[in-house]
Amino acid sequence: MNYRLLARHLGVVSWLIGVTMVFSLPWAFPAFGQTEHFEHTGFWALVDSIVICGLIGLALRLAGRRAEGTLYRKEAMAIVGLSWILATILGALPYLLSRTSIGETADGTKIHMNVADSLFESQSGFSTTGATVLTNVEDPQLVQRCILFWRSGTHFLGGLGIIVLFVAVLGQGSSGKALMRAEMPGPSKEGTHNRMQHTAWAFAGIYLLLNAMLTILLKLEGPWTAQGTMSWFDALCHAFGTIATGGFSTHNRSVGYYNSSAVDSTLIVFMILSGSNFALLYSVCIGKPIRLLRDVEFRTYICWIAGVTILIVAVGTIFYDDFDEADQLTPAQEVSAAVRYGMFNIVSIMTTTGFTTDDFDRWNQLARSILFLSMFVGACAGSTSGSIKIIRHILFLKILRREVEQAYHPTVVRHLRLGDEVISDPEVRKNVLVYFGMVFFIFMLSWLLIVGMEEDATWTSQGMSIENKLVDVASAVISTFSNIGPGLGTVGATKTYAVFNWKSKLILTLVMMLGRVEIFSVLVLFLPSFWRNR
Amino acid sequence: MNYRLLARHLGVVSWLIGVTMVFSLPWAFPAFGQTEHFEHTGFWALVDSIVICGLIGLALRLAGRRAEGTLYRKEAMAIVGLSWILATILGALPYLLSRTSIGETADGTKIHMNVADSLFESQSGFSTTGATVLTNVEDPQLVQRCILFWRSGTHFLGGLGIIVLFVAVLGQGSSGKALMRAEMPGPSKEGTHNRMQHTAWAFAGIYLLLNAMLTILLKLEGPWTAQGTMSWFDALCHAFGTIATGGFSTHNRSVGYYNSSAVDSTLIVFMILSGSNFALLYSVCIGKPIRLLRDVEFRTYICWIAGVTILIVAVGTIFYDDFDEADQLTPAQEVSAAVRYGMFNIVSIMTTTGFTTDDFDRWNQLARSILFLSMFVGACAGSTSGSIKIIRHILFLKILRREVEQAYHPTVVRHLRLGDEVISDPEVRKNVLVYFGMVFFIFMLSWLLIVGMEEDATWTSQGMSIENKLVDVASAVISTFSNIGPGLGTVGATKTYAVFNWKSKLILTLVMMLGRVEIFSVLVLFLPSFWRNR
Repeated sequence: MNYRLLARHLGVVSWLIGVTMVFSLPWAFPAFGQTEHFEHTGFWALVDSIVICGLIGLALRLAGRRAEGTLYRKEAMAIVGLSWILATILGALPYLLSRTSIGETADGTKIHMNVADSLFESQSGFSTTGATVLTNVEDPQLVQRCILFWRSGTHFLGGLGIIVLFVAVLGQGSSGKALMRAEMPGPSKEGTHNRMQHTAWAFAGIYLLLNAMLTILLKLEGPWTAQGTMSWFDALCHAFGTIATGGFSTHNRSVGYYNSSAVDSTLIVFMILSGSNFALLYSVCIGKPIRLLRDVEFRTYICWIAGVTILIVAVGTIFYDDFDEADQLTPAQEVSAAVRYGMFNIVSIMTTTGFTTDDFDRWNQLARSILFLSMFVGACAGSTSGSIKIIRHILFLKILRREVEQAYHPTVVRHLRLGDEVISDPEVRKNVLVYFGMVFFIFMLSWLLIVGMEEDATWTSQGMSIENKLVDVASAVISTFSNIGPGLGTVGATKTYAVFNWKSKLILTLVMMLGRVEIFSVLVLFLPSFWRNR
Repeated sequence: MNYRLLARHLGVVSWLIGVTMVFSLPWAFPAFGQTEHFEHTGFWALVDSIVICGLIGLALRLAGRRAEGTLYRKEAMAIVGLSWILATILGALPYLLSRTSIGETADGTKIHMNVADSLFESQSGFSTTGATVLTNVEDPQLVQRCILFWRSGTHFLGGLGIIVLFVAVLGQGSSGKALMRAEMPGPSKEGTHNRMQHTAWAFAGIYLLLNAMLTILLKLEGPWTAQGTMSWFDALCHAFGTIATGGFSTHNRSVGYYNSSAVDSTLIVFMILSGSNFALLYSVCIGKPIRLLRDVEFRTYICWIAGVTILIVAVGTIFYDDFDEADQLTPAQEVSAAVRYGMFNIVSIMTTTGFTTDDFDRWNQLARSILFLSMFVGACAGSTSGSIKIIRHILFLKILRREVEQAYHPTVVRHLRLGDEVISDPEVRKNVLVYFGMVFFIFMLSWLLIVGMEEDATWTSQGMSIENKLVDVASAVISTFSNIGPGLGTVGATKTYAVFNWKSKLILTLVMMLGRVEIFSVLVLFLPSFWRNR
């Protein structure tokens, strides 16, 4: 292992995090309209964190100043894995130093974030999960505004990191490099390095553009919200949460706070865009939109969202009163509400964003189980979304179908097709199956660990029956692994992860990380043989 | 497809079922000590069923009298799949014709088994699942003794069918034929056909021997039961349920009815034996016990049972009062009770038998979740047990480990080892992964279907909270797929499947069948291309 090279690259990551923190500083000042008084602790916590990031970055760069050699696959994996760990630790500093509170006890005592809380929140931000331990983000006494902006800033940086480092440079965002290469944009005559750089810049450009567009749109839609206005602060934070498919909001009721169909529908469109393959969005930008429409994964993605929405809306309105609990709406109003709330929350889960406008735990059990299963699906490869990704599901089903046919026709060789493309590489097939295997293995293991370590009292203290435990923990695990955020029941749309104990939070932090880097980049770090020099 | 050959073989299956029914007839007579009056309806229902089996068999034999050609893989698969369907239908006749009752309403009206109930019960018997819709099997007014014997008889025949047809002849009981062949006993110099016949007879012999031994042991242990005696009827039925890893009991409280540590421990031993590879039991019979002890799968199986038992007993006694709810036992008594009840129910679930002596739904949530996950494990390949089987889990974990290592060392080729054996066939690797994929796909799909079609009122009518639904249905699906029987909550140790509606029962019937034949043999029957002539 080329440690100097690792240090050199990790130094840049450290500096990058420090630089991003600078943008959170202004919101500590009353001049920026978010706070009445200068946020003393939050401001200095950020300054301290920036200094620490700078110093660690300097130390790493010094350690790596004599770095030589090329970045091999092994080093690249180590950098991705270690970057995520480094980012999580550095990103947790502002929460810890500002003594941010996850909530208050009945007698008004603030409960400060401990190390596990801070790491969880930081990882949740960088991995664009959006799961939170903060029960009340609206009270500046508990969470200072500049810290809240940093929280959304981690989404922005995390999303950018995925798109630039993971998707464009490592090309692992897709299922198998074979697929990704085929769709990689840019002039293919150039060398790999130049092409990668080009791709990285192009993707970063699209990412920034989407963020900027959404911020401005949200700001303009202020008059159509329940509050009659939207601050730049809110617009920026929600744009960061959307384009990174993160889901941190600046309000306790998430996007439901604005109660605006304009905001809801805008976010639906941008969530869907953010869940699309950035290589295809690039094609649209360079005037080749047909590529997007002809893409098998994108088409499946759109059909899947539409299908699930129709199913949940139909079952929820015909057989249950999911979207009209008080039974006060006319049929037309009920359908309208069902489409609006149903679609928003389904898109939010499916793109692994995690914003909410309705408490989907009050929907019927079929809807809840569909949402639960949707957590295993995710959106397109090459996007900021998490989870298994649609392309892997398509390949998975095709492989299973092929195998059933081969069971009675062992001699007939059938090729795996994806649109017009033939997937001839047997590695792709195996990789897809192995990935599913890893996901279920990690899911089962984490589920068992948290069920074991979390007290049964966690549920009774929430006024829920203990029977929820198994499903709720399962949803918490898959929701964090898939980088979604909310799960069912105790970690549902209106709840937080604050009730879990520190051990569970650390496990979920690791689960988020594993999910984000598609398992391998982090998992190999735990293998001694990985570190041995060859 | 060679239809004549199919008909010829299916005719034998039909006759075999008819012949087995004959052995249920005696129990209708008071002379055999199970009933005070001659069981008129039950007796004639059986006679009618026997006649129908005979006629159908005759028709099939006539249709296939000019059968020619060899049994290819395709035909063999069709025979296995269709045999199971035929057996299910014929086996359901006695229930339907005798108007057996699943229970009584509050005002004493008998609820007769409908077609779905009968098919469910029949499939549950043949697939050695042991899931039942009969809420009260102790009342002869509801379930006649001769019908109850037929119910256990389906276990006997099902178990024999698996061992002889599926394991010995088709050799699919193991994960991939490659593995199975290596362990197949018998003189290897002979031709394949002779060798298969030899294996089939040997396995059938072991199966019958185990049944006979257990019946006699149980009969002898009568004085140590709470009732002070055990009838031949009970001894036979429980032996059938044990060796076939079925789980149908003749009492509502299952084996817990006898409240006998002698019976419990005898059954634990025989359940473990029945979950072992019959090829290895054969080795023991021919004086080579070392093969059993050196087998990787058998060793893992024993360690796994021991490990799970220790974990559940330790957590249940130290942190909870799972085995001493009234808090009246001394610590030594508590540990003794924990080992006895813990081990019995764990072994019962793990070997996919499904007898119960304790309501494990009252254990803590960690124990429940471990039991739930254990339902996906199963016992050894080449046994009567269901589920995924331990060998596949061993291979699965080895494949995953290998892939993680290959992620950073793509060029190093590592062989998959199983004990001293090297698994060089890449097909084995792929098959294992595909099998896991199929299991999860079927599991998810069935879960969703039943959650959707089963009314929420099913749970509230049972006095349970609706939150149980998702977990209970999941446990019902995996319990039937793995041919276990009891699940959690609504289908728990003290409950039955009677509450489900007929659609759910039919789905679960199909799930049991798919699980029993390891998916492919039944699944291919639904593919049109399977039936097309080549």
